[in-house]
Amino acid sequence: MSLKALFEPASVAIIGASSNPARIGGRPIAYYLKAGFKGDIYPVNPNRDVIQGLKAYPDIASIPGKVDLAVLAISAKMVAGALTACGEKDVKTVVLFSAGFSELGDQGDVLQDQLDKISQRYGMRILGPNCLGLYNGDIGNCPTFTSGLDGGFPRNGRVGLITQSGAYGTHLLTMAKSRRLGVSKWVSTGNESDLTVAECLEYLIDSDAVDVVGCYMEGVKKPKVLIRALEKARAAGKAVIIMKVGVSEVGSKAVQSHTASLTGSDASFQALIDQYGAQRARTTEQMFDSLYAFSISPRAEGNQLGILTVSGGAGVLMADAAEEEGLPVPPMPDVTQKRLIERNPLCAPCNPVDITGNALNDFDLVGESLTAMCEEGQYDLLVAFFTSWVGSPAHGEKLFDALSKGIKKHKKPFAVIGQSTEAIKEKYESVGIMVFEDPSRAIVALSALAKFNTAFNQATQDEEELPAITNITLPTEKIGEAEAKLLMEKVGIPIPKEEVVSNAEEAVKSANDIGFPVVIKIISPDIAHKSEAGGVALNLENDEEVRAAVNLMFKTVAEREPNAKIEGLLISPMIGDGVDFIIGTQRDPIMGPVIMVGLGGIYTEILKDVRLSLAPVSHARAISMLQSLRGAAIFQGARGQAVINISAVADAVSRLSVLAVQNADTIDSIEINPLRAMSNNTVALDALILSNETIKNH
Amino acid sequence: MSLKALFEPASVAIIGASSNPARIGGRPIAYYLKAGFKGDIYPVNPNRDVIQGLKAYPDIASIPGKVDLAVLAISAKMVAGALTACGEKDVKTVVLFSAGFSELGDQGDVLQDQLDKISQRYGMRILGPNCLGLYNGDIGNCPTFTSGLDGGFPRNGRVGLITQSGAYGTHLLTMAKSRRLGVSKWVSTGNESDLTVAECLEYLIDSDAVDVVGCYMEGVKKPKVLIRALEKARAAGKAVIIMKVGVSEVGSKAVQSHTASLTGSDASFQALIDQYGAQRARTTEQMFDSLYAFSISPRAEGNQLGILTVSGGAGVLMADAAEEEGLPVPPMPDVTQKRLIERNPLCAPCNPVDITGNALNDFDLVGESLTAMCEEGQYDLLVAFFTSWVGSPAHGEKLFDALSKGIKKHKKPFAVIGQSTEAIKEKYESVGIMVFEDPSRAIVALSALAKFNTAFNQATQDEEELPAITNITLPTEKIGEAEAKLLMEKVGIPIPKEEVVSNAEEAVKSANDIGFPVVIKIISPDIAHKSEAGGVALNLENDEEVRAAVNLMFKTVAEREPNAKIEGLLISPMIGDGVDFIIGTQRDPIMGPVIMVGLGGIYTEILKDVRLSLAPVSHARAISMLQSLRGAAIFQGARGQAVINISAVADAVSRLSVLAVQNADTIDSIEINPLRAMSNNTVALDALILSNETIKNH
Repeated sequence: MSLKALFEPASVAIIGASSNPARIGGRPIAYYLKAGFKGDIYPVNPNRDVIQGLKAYPDIASIPGKVDLAVLAISAKMVAGALTACGEKDVKTVVLFSAGFSELGDQGDVLQDQLDKISQRYGMRILGPNCLGLYNGDIGNCPTFTSGLDGGFPRNGRVGLITQSGAYGTHLLTMAKSRRLGVSKWVSTGNESDLTVAECLEYLIDSDAVDVVGCYMEGVKKPKVLIRALEKARAAGKAVIIMKVGVSEVGSKAVQSHTASLTGSDASFQALIDQYGAQRARTTEQMFDSLYAFSISPRAEGNQLGILTVSGGAGVLMADAAEEEGLPVPPMPDVTQKRLIERNPLCAPCNPVDITGNALNDFDLVGESLTAMCEEGQYDLLVAFFTSWVGSPAHGEKLFDALSKGIKKHKKPFAVIGQSTEAIKEKYESVGIMVFEDPSRAIVALSALAKFNTAFNQATQDEEELPAITNITLPTEKIGEAEAKLLMEKVGIPIPKEEVVSNAEEAVKSANDIGFPVVIKIISPDIAHKSEAGGVALNLENDEEVRAAVNLMFKTVAEREPNAKIEGLLISPMIGDGVDFIIGTQRDPIMGPVIMVGLGGIYTEILKDVRLSLAPVSHARAISMLQSLRGAAIFQGARGQAVINISAVADAVSRLSVLAVQNADTIDSIEINPLRAMSNNTVALDALILSNETIKNH
Repeated sequence: MSLKALFEPASVAIIGASSNPARIGGRPIAYYLKAGFKGDIYPVNPNRDVIQGLKAYPDIASIPGKVDLAVLAISAKMVAGALTACGEKDVKTVVLFSAGFSELGDQGDVLQDQLDKISQRYGMRILGPNCLGLYNGDIGNCPTFTSGLDGGFPRNGRVGLITQSGAYGTHLLTMAKSRRLGVSKWVSTGNESDLTVAECLEYLIDSDAVDVVGCYMEGVKKPKVLIRALEKARAAGKAVIIMKVGVSEVGSKAVQSHTASLTGSDASFQALIDQYGAQRARTTEQMFDSLYAFSISPRAEGNQLGILTVSGGAGVLMADAAEEEGLPVPPMPDVTQKRLIERNPLCAPCNPVDITGNALNDFDLVGESLTAMCEEGQYDLLVAFFTSWVGSPAHGEKLFDALSKGIKKHKKPFAVIGQSTEAIKEKYESVGIMVFEDPSRAIVALSALAKFNTAFNQATQDEEELPAITNITLPTEKIGEAEAKLLMEKVGIPIPKEEVVSNAEEAVKSANDIGFPVVIKIISPDIAHKSEAGGVALNLENDEEVRAAVNLMFKTVAEREPNAKIEGLLISPMIGDGVDFIIGTQRDPIMGPVIMVGLGGIYTEILKDVRLSLAPVSHARAISMLQSLRGAAIFQGARGQAVINISAVADAVSRLSVLAVQNADTIDSIEINPLRAMSNNTVALDALILSNETIKNH
């Protein structure tokens, strides 16, 4: 169902309308009038005939025409009745300002559930409760009491803002205005009893009037809708910048499997953001800089940065910042450098191209250098440091002409660093040039554009790229290592050839079958830490060693774990050296199954060097997860180690992720630790499956 | 020699004076006049009698009075003559605007050397050449042509700015003005033929009129003066914020020893900054935020942050930012929380303290909550989110009264987040309250204050804390492992009991002396990688194994390294398990000997997890270097490993650092790799010493 009635209503009723334009019930009306809303506005108030110059109605039933949108500016206890009246009037959407619902805890939850039931009965959509409403500047739709519209509306443009927090949303709206950001849509979602950030985002992305959206979120609801919206955004080349606060670890319920400590819900959220091509802003200013860049600049088509400067120092500073952001700063072609030097002997022609203060004496140098950088340097992104020249009464006009003409036919993102007035900045912005005072912030903004370009060009993962594995329903009762590994083998993840035996003589026979040297492990569903229990013997080379090891193992285990049920002995070949990985899945309470990969041992446990992705992942995505590990050099042949077959590791990652999705409802975590990767193949040496049930009963 | 004549001259001559106040020779005069400089101003120009209303002189010799400071605004080729004339006139200090010296390369170096000789002959100090001069607002001293003073001088205050780059320095000055930063001193050092950033910093720190200094640097000259200035700053509780650009690795000369790749000069510079309590700004904005905070706020006395907010979302955002900055956000006392809830049932009383929009109806809540946070919460730092209330015509005045009264008697750093006019911001600032729009930037600025507090409280390392080691002069010819280790033993770093033998039978005898199992290594100054050459045999358990190993070793080494001079065999005990460290020193071309410590193997080689410090370091500083390693958990008993004796490791680090200082002129690097640390002791298993000579001859 479209949110058209919410964003573009033809008629609006304000229940609890007030004559005082400073009050909650008065503000929306005042804003509607000021914005020149063309639809019908129906104030509802049983005690007045006229409100702010408009005819008022005693109740919603008395309104003569159709009502697309109703705004409820009334106290919590009156909401249920008013909502029912809206339903009877066939209102399509309701904006619920009223506080006093689930933000108060259990008691409020009960009240909020009542609202949901009423609106569902009538098929109405609700924004709120406990929200500040929304603003759509395209048609002057103002069902909001935010003070962020006091003193004027934002410049209309192609930016959307969505915020869960009302008060912080007002702060954002005010910041947007002071930065002249072209914000045509602003929505505060509040308690999200029905409509969430995700649905509002999808609506804005679907809208032809919006190119870029900033979201402020505290928690994620409806991740599937969010993913759908982000996929649409990527397909349409629209940028989504998300600021999510409340970074916290998942609860203690999943501590049993030690991947738990690494897959906190913020990490899962970050995985979602990375996967679907959105960008995460860590600060409000960073969000605004990205919104500014995307709303002003042409699209980036690469990440190579050209730096034009009149200060050597500023050039170095920007080159440093570019390196930190991962933007290459390649040199100008030799022939161009030679020409530039001949033309301006004091210049540094490489990149940064430093034309020095000499440009003040020979202003043509500015335009010529910029043209050379666009045409011969072929940079994708440009930044130019001109400090006070930008706002200078003597040089400002000439500089603007040179820069705007120089960049005009090239349609490249271009940031000018300088000090100037708001009016001069606006002039630059009107021709697609950004103006920054801090060079580092300009570089970060240019980098954000380049990263969006990369994300837009990345194909969404194709379902067909996923490995076809048998549909396996994992058992939810406790199972041992041997059984877990056999399940992994069914999924297509290699395991060592192994046999289960029950005594020393069978062990000797089995060892001879498998081939020496062998490893023997105790099988018991009750023993989590086999080594500590004396249940592991490594590198046994002959019959005698096997016999001795089994006898010792039974004795030691019986002493240390007297109550453990012993189901047998697992005989496996001693596996050669290689690189150990940990791969695992963990069910995030919001995002569903998340797949993790890391290098074994200290890399994961101490250095937390792991990569996460929402499951399922294709082989290609698994490869890129592996390659982005900090310790990747380890399996790429560093320190004289053999290069290992990461394709086989990626295959295991991909298969495990599909298995996790198949069992998303019942399995909490699966972990293969270690997965040993060698130059030719890969084997799962241990596996652990934890279901919801096993965790609850633990 | 004091720089008083430069910063506070009684008389100034401007050589190359111009009547045009827009020209290089005219600007300083115009600025002096506008600033109301009380001293004598002598324009020098052979073609004019009067310049900008002042009597002009044909040459410096004709000036009747004493000249403290001469400004040279003339072309490069005229500088030498003018400088000699200044010398003859007994001028104390010269500001040299002229470009055309060492910034042009070798040819310019020659010219600049000439200037140095002239000024040294007369005992004159030089600022420049190729600089923009300086500004001292206290007395209107303006020997500068920066356009940063166009349109007005900065607000006078207790901030100093020092910049190597002239153009970027002008940008900084303009930014300072637009932020109303109280900048009384600004210096551009240019080519630094004589006076450097370090000396200017020392002068500003010595000045009673300056509390906080921002430096923009491209390279470090005179690190000892810089260190002295930073030590004075710390002792005086003055803050130094340094932005150093041009982050680059040391040259290829030191690649032989692989610590080289980790001790680039930027890393050494960072070590200096960390060690002497300054702060490094990564961006211009961050530098300004720190300068702003330190110039507005009372000093921090701890790092516990109290967050007051009218928006739950903003509270969460600020708590996230605090965690990222390492600022604790402890809860309010239970009894206070109870009282706040009773007073304002909708509030969240913990910390963040969210008084909600309800405060608009009951304004006393603002002051009461702030007081409770100061007195009962006892926070060291406070931040309050009031968004548009700050600038609101309806509430702004009341809010200012409540906040300024609330904080007044507590003298704590306090940042208010809100949107307002410059005039309102200035009102807050005048009572020591900072105003920010972006909450994250406010938290970073508060954190900078807390970090300065920590740095100020840290005692400077006492020379007496250094270990007293015999003064050892290390040999500069190539020496082998055995000899290097014996030298380490002399320094007090334990090494294994070892013997040098020349054949298999001697090896067997020696192994029996030392005790089995033993390790045998080939001794040859020509073999850098013994294992690859077949020159290492481990874990030899009896006579036979020793004999066989020696025979194989001689054969293999002869095949693989036929030209190596073999000096014998080193027999050592096989050392038990432990944690391996790498400790090393490297001579930084600017900073002198730097000491490095890291965990062995992948930690150092792949993860670059090392800590650097300028040598020498005390035992206490070595301990804190070790504890700050990312992988520190490894030697603190993680993963079931024994806790190892890091005191012994720190002792080795400290001793090695003293040795490096003793041999700073001749030794390029010393590396102990590995230094094996066990629960009771520590031994150096290998050592490598490289002198300048061995590197040159390699």
